[in-house]
Amino acid sequence: MPELIHETVVTTCAPDGRVHVAPMGARYVGDEVVLMPFRPSTTLANIETTGVAVLNLVTDVRVFAGCITGRHDWATVAVPEIVGVRLACALGHVSLRLVECIDDAQRPKLRLARVAQAQHAPFKGFNRAQAAVIEGAILVSRLHLLPAEKIDAEMRYLQIAIDKTAGPAELEAWRWLQEAVTQHAQARAEALR
Amino acid sequence: MPELIHETVVTTCAPDGRVHVAPMGARYVGDEVVLMPFRPSTTLANIETTGVAVLNLVTDVRVFAGCITGRHDWATVAVPEIVGVRLACALGHVSLRLVECIDDAQRPKLRLARVAQAQHAPFKGFNRAQAAVIEGAILVSRLHLLPAEKIDAEMRYLQIAIDKTAGPAELEAWRWLQEAVTQHAQARAEALR
Repeated sequence: MPELIHETVVTTCAPDGRVHVAPMGARYVGDEVVLMPFRPSTTLANIETTGVAVLNLVTDVRVFAGCITGRHDWATVAVPEIVGVRLACALGHVSLRLVECIDDAQRPKLRLARVAQAQHAPFKGFNRAQAAVIEGAILVSRLHLLPAEKIDAEMRYLQIAIDKTAGPAELEAWRWLQEAVTQHAQARAEALR
Repeated sequence: MPELIHETVVTTCAPDGRVHVAPMGARYVGDEVVLMPFRPSTTLANIETTGVAVLNLVTDVRVFAGCITGRHDWATVAVPEIVGVRLACALGHVSLRLVECIDDAQRPKLRLARVAQAQHAPFKGFNRAQAAVIEGAILVSRLHLLPAEKIDAEMRYLQIAIDKTAGPAELEAWRWLQEAVTQHAQARAEALR
């Protein structure tokens, strides 16, 4: 049975209140949300300690491209229903409480119950450039695994949707990804010298 | 200045009440929505006659893949604020009234004011398979312009996100696109015989 996976952003807090922002695939299973973070994971550690998390439904793709390129500082707002925060830019959020952690050496499976959910801004429709940034962010997270030709070909393909449909936020996110690709190519070239 | 274009679905009615459903790029410009339908366009004719339209914000990608592959019959619901309908599956809609039609032989530019807007279901987050269906639908609309190798390469690339993140609706939409690609390849092969 195919399982729909949504690309979301999970916000958690450490016991000292420090916020952690992490893009993460999420599955909606019945009334629950299932996350499967790869170890090691600050999100996992925070959820194991505090028992709560917030799922953010976000279309500002700078968060996705930013987190993958070392930009972790995103504006947050406290949620009323748990000790937690949501992203200020979230179109909506779901506050979650841990039901069960099915342990695994690589990817534990977290079953989380919905405590509350709210919408903050309307969904404006699909945007091809936003989807291209999501694909580009996944590509950048896997640069060390991929040959240079595949990276270049994929960035060229994604550039088409960027050129045709991006706004300023999408262009900024795309630049961060392009910089990461360039830096990786330079590092690879230097390593070969 | 880059302009963000969203992929939406526009519903209009003919004077006899017949509903027309058309995927269309939309720009949000200030408080207005701008549409630029390619002539000939039933959406354009209906808006010129009735003066109204409904912008649907949709994540059920079967509507996009369906309309491009001859499936035009989608469930609709009357909206209260104008004589018009929205898609039953819309996460939200914006009812629009024509302000100005800037004529053009190929792509007239329609400036539309928001009469009202409403949300019907929460946005659940990005889904890579939905984005792949959108790209696939655009590809299918351009099959007659593209070499077979490019079509095959792009479908193979998009298949990755389908395999990893699709649910049943995305798989159904993807099958419709695959069938259209196959039919086009067969027709092309027969023409070459």
